[in-house]
Amino acid sequence: MSKEITPRAEDYSRWYQDIVLRAELADYAPVKGCMVIRPYGFAIWEKMQAILDRKFRDTGHVNAYFPLLIPESFLRKEAEHVEGFSPECAVVTHAGGAKLEEPYVIRPTSETIIWSMYRKWIQSYRDLPLLINQWCNVMRWELRTRLFLRTTEFLWQEGHTAHATEEEAEREARQMLEVYSEFARSTMALPVIEGLKTDREKFAGAVRTYTIESMMQDRKALQAGTSHNLGQNFARAFEVTFLDQDGERKLVWATSWGVSTRLVGALIMAHSDDRGLVLPPALAPLEIVIVPIYRSDEERGLVLEKAEQIRRELAGKHTVKLDDREQFKPGFKFSEWEMRGVPLRLELGPRDVASGQVVLVRRDTGGKESVAVESVSSAAGMALQEIQQGLYKRALAFREENSVKIDGYGELKEFLARDGGFALVHWAGDSADEERLQEETKATIRCIPLSQEKEAGRCVMTGKPSNGRVVVAKAY
Amino acid sequence: MSKEITPRAEDYSRWYQDIVLRAELADYAPVKGCMVIRPYGFAIWEKMQAILDRKFRDTGHVNAYFPLLIPESFLRKEAEHVEGFSPECAVVTHAGGAKLEEPYVIRPTSETIIWSMYRKWIQSYRDLPLLINQWCNVMRWELRTRLFLRTTEFLWQEGHTAHATEEEAEREARQMLEVYSEFARSTMALPVIEGLKTDREKFAGAVRTYTIESMMQDRKALQAGTSHNLGQNFARAFEVTFLDQDGERKLVWATSWGVSTRLVGALIMAHSDDRGLVLPPALAPLEIVIVPIYRSDEERGLVLEKAEQIRRELAGKHTVKLDDREQFKPGFKFSEWEMRGVPLRLELGPRDVASGQVVLVRRDTGGKESVAVESVSSAAGMALQEIQQGLYKRALAFREENSVKIDGYGELKEFLARDGGFALVHWAGDSADEERLQEETKATIRCIPLSQEKEAGRCVMTGKPSNGRVVVAKAY
Repeated sequence: MSKEITPRAEDYSRWYQDIVLRAELADYAPVKGCMVIRPYGFAIWEKMQAILDRKFRDTGHVNAYFPLLIPESFLRKEAEHVEGFSPECAVVTHAGGAKLEEPYVIRPTSETIIWSMYRKWIQSYRDLPLLINQWCNVMRWELRTRLFLRTTEFLWQEGHTAHATEEEAEREARQMLEVYSEFARSTMALPVIEGLKTDREKFAGAVRTYTIESMMQDRKALQAGTSHNLGQNFARAFEVTFLDQDGERKLVWATSWGVSTRLVGALIMAHSDDRGLVLPPALAPLEIVIVPIYRSDEERGLVLEKAEQIRRELAGKHTVKLDDREQFKPGFKFSEWEMRGVPLRLELGPRDVASGQVVLVRRDTGGKESVAVESVSSAAGMALQEIQQGLYKRALAFREENSVKIDGYGELKEFLARDGGFALVHWAGDSADEERLQEETKATIRCIPLSQEKEAGRCVMTGKPSNGRVVVAKAY
Repeated sequence: MSKEITPRAEDYSRWYQDIVLRAELADYAPVKGCMVIRPYGFAIWEKMQAILDRKFRDTGHVNAYFPLLIPESFLRKEAEHVEGFSPECAVVTHAGGAKLEEPYVIRPTSETIIWSMYRKWIQSYRDLPLLINQWCNVMRWELRTRLFLRTTEFLWQEGHTAHATEEEAEREARQMLEVYSEFARSTMALPVIEGLKTDREKFAGAVRTYTIESMMQDRKALQAGTSHNLGQNFARAFEVTFLDQDGERKLVWATSWGVSTRLVGALIMAHSDDRGLVLPPALAPLEIVIVPIYRSDEERGLVLEKAEQIRRELAGKHTVKLDDREQFKPGFKFSEWEMRGVPLRLELGPRDVASGQVVLVRRDTGGKESVAVESVSSAAGMALQEIQQGLYKRALAFREENSVKIDGYGELKEFLARDGGFALVHWAGDSADEERLQEETKATIRCIPLSQEKEAGRCVMTGKPSNGRVVVAKAY
C-alpha cells in the first residue's frame, strides 16, 4: 500500500497497472491473459451491474441464461460472424474423458446460441418483441491483454432482442445506446461521443453498430459500449420467422448490445491520478472514510466518541467507514484511502472536537473545508455531489482541449504521431483507405458522431467531398 | 399453456419436466446436457441469489471473480480432488487457432485456482480470515442430466475461506450450513435435515462435508447444499502458509460451500402439484395476480376501474399484476397463473364490485375467501404469510410421514424397493459396506444427522454396535 505509484508522465501503462494491483482491484491469474477480479474491484462492477440492470428492466428487458458452450457449426451459420470471431475462440474438444464428436467453442458472444432458441420460441407476432438480457462470462483469445481493458475472459452483459419490424429494431438499438451513454455520463462521470461505426469497424454480423467513445488521460480513445442493429442476418441464419398480423410469415429483426468489465478499466483511466484511484461517488464501494487524529489516550476517547457519532449520522445515507485501526498513523491512513479512491475523507482531531468542527477533504481536488459537526451530513452530501459533477466536467474539459478539427493528411499524421487526442476530420474513404489510415498512423476511425452540424468539406485522405466529420484516434 | 400436465401419480419425472417446460422455467439447449434458463425461471434464481448474497455479506463475506479455466496440472495437486473431478471435466485444448501447450479444464469447482491465488495474498495472520464468495457458472460432464437438477453446466455460488485455526474453519463450515438450512426453511419453505456425509460421500478433497438433505414428493432425497471443512489439504497442495502471531509459519485452514440452480429444481419438486408450479411467496417473481370478470362493456369499465384501484394499493408491498388481456377468458387466465405458480389470485366480478368485496384464491390449497375491498391489503399479506408457512408445514408433515426407523436389512431393502422414503437405520459399516448397500438397494447414506438423540443399536448391515442412526434413501 505504501509503495509509490509510477507517475502518469513517466509511464502511463505502468501507472495504470500499479493502480489496479495496489488498490487491489484485480490481479494476474495463472491462466493466459486472464485476471482475477478482487473484492474491491468486483464491488465496483457490482455497483455498475445494479444500476444498469435497473435501467434494462425499466426499458422492458428481462434476464435469462444461455449455455457457455456453442457448437462450432452454429458459428458458421452467419458468414461475417464466423470470420470475425472464429480466430479468437477457445475450443473444447474433450469432455467426460472422451473426444467430442463436434467441438464446442466457449462463447465469444451469444448471438448464435440465442437465435437457435429464438427459433423455437418465436412463432407469432404475439411473441414479439422479445427483450432478453444476459449477465455472463465470455472468452476471446486475445494476444495482447491488459487488466480489465482486454482479457481473454471477461464479464459482461449482452442484450438480444427480436422485433417484428426494422423500425422497431433500429429504435431499440438507439435506445440502448442512449441508456449506455446516460450511464457513462451520470454514473461513471465519463463524457462519451455517441456515434456510428464504419463498415470496417462494425460488429461481425451487424448491419449497423453504434458506439460510445470516451477519451482516456493519455488522449487515447476507449470504446465503452456498443449497440448493434443486426437486421435480419441472424434470423436468416437460424430461420427465425413469425406469422404476422397480416397472415404472412416474415423474418424477425434483431439487435444486440453489451458493456463489459472493461468499463472498470475506463473508470480507472479516466479519473485517477498519481496518488492512486479516483472514483465517482456513484460507483465508490466506500464513499466516506473518517480518520480520527489523537496523541494521548484521553484524546483518543474524546475523538473516537465524536467520530462514531458522525459515522452513525452518515451511515443512513452513505457508505461510510470509521478507520479506528490502532497500528497505523493518520498519514498512512490518508495515503491508503487516497490510493483506494474513497471520494471523501473526514479528519477529526481534539481541536476539531473542541470547536465542534470536522474537516472534509475531497479526493478529486484535495480541497479541504471545515464544517460544523451538526451540518456534516448535508455538507458531505453536497461535497459528494460536487465530486461527481466535478469529475465529469474535468474529463469533458480534457476531451475538448484535446479534440481538434484537422483538414490535411500530413497534419493528421503529425497530430496522431504525438498522441494529440481526437482528430475530427472529413472522411469519404472506403475500407481500403481506412486500412491504409491505420497502417500509416496506428489510429482508426472511432466513430461517425451522431450529433454534429452538417459541414461541407473534403476527405482528409482521398479529397472526395464529405458533409461531416469523423473521430480519428488511437484506441485501447 | 393450456396443455395438460402429466399427473404425478402417472409419471413423476414426466410431471416434473412438463412443469419446467410449460411454466417456461427452462428449456433444453442444443448443447449436450445443458439447459437454457428462461426469464421466469431465472427470476426465481435471481431472488434466491439476492437473499443468499445478503446473508453472505451479513456473515462477513465479500464477492470476487476467478477465471473459468483451470490449468490441468492444478487439479492434480490435490490427490482426492483430481480423482473426484477429472473424469467429468470439459477440456479446452485449442485456442486462438492453435493447440495449447497445457490444456485447461473448465472449472468443475474453483478450489485449485482460488488457492493458487491465496498463496499470493496470504502472508501473515493479519490477512486472515479471508472470506470470499463467487457467483459463477461451472461445468461437470454428467451422463444423465435433468433440467435444473443435474446439467452439465450450472450456475452456483462457491464460498472459499481461509483461516488461522482449525476451530475457526470448523465454525465457518458449520455457520454456512446454518445459513443454507435457514434459507431452505424460511425462504424455500423446504424442511431439511442437517447432517454429515460419510467418507464415501464427502467432497473430493474435504476432511468433512456437511449437507442439508430434503425430501421430494416422490420420497427421494435431494441434497440441497453442502459445506466442507477442507482442513489443510488445499493449503498443503498450494503451499499456502502464514506467519502467525507467535512468529511461526503455519499452513492455512480452509472451507468451501455452495448451492446451485439445482435449488430451483428442488423448489419445483417439493411444492408443485398436478395443476402446475406452486411457489412460496418469498421466491415468487409475481406474488399476486388480479383477474377481472365481466360480460359486457359496462361491467368491464366498472370492474377494471376497481381492479386497478386494488392493484395500486397492493403494488407498494407486493409484486402484483392486473391481467386485463382482452383475448382470454377468466378460466383460461386462472389455469395459466396456476400453472405459473402465482401464490395468490384475486377475482373480481360485477357483483363483487357492487358488494365491495373481492375473492382471494390461494394457489397452494385452492382455498377461497371473500374479503372487503378496504381490507384487501392486510388480507393479502396475511394469506401470503399463511401460504409460506403452510407450504413448509405440508412438506415437513410429508417428510415425517415418510421417514421410518428400520432395524433389519431385509426390511430396509423392501422399504427402499417400494420407494418408501427416508429410512433411519443404525450404521457402523465401512465404505465397502456402503458400496454394497448402494448396489443392492440403489440407495445411499444421505447423511448422519447432526441433531439426534443417542440411541444404542446395531448396524443394519454388519450388526456392529452403533450409537446413532443415519438417513438412507434413494436420491437425485
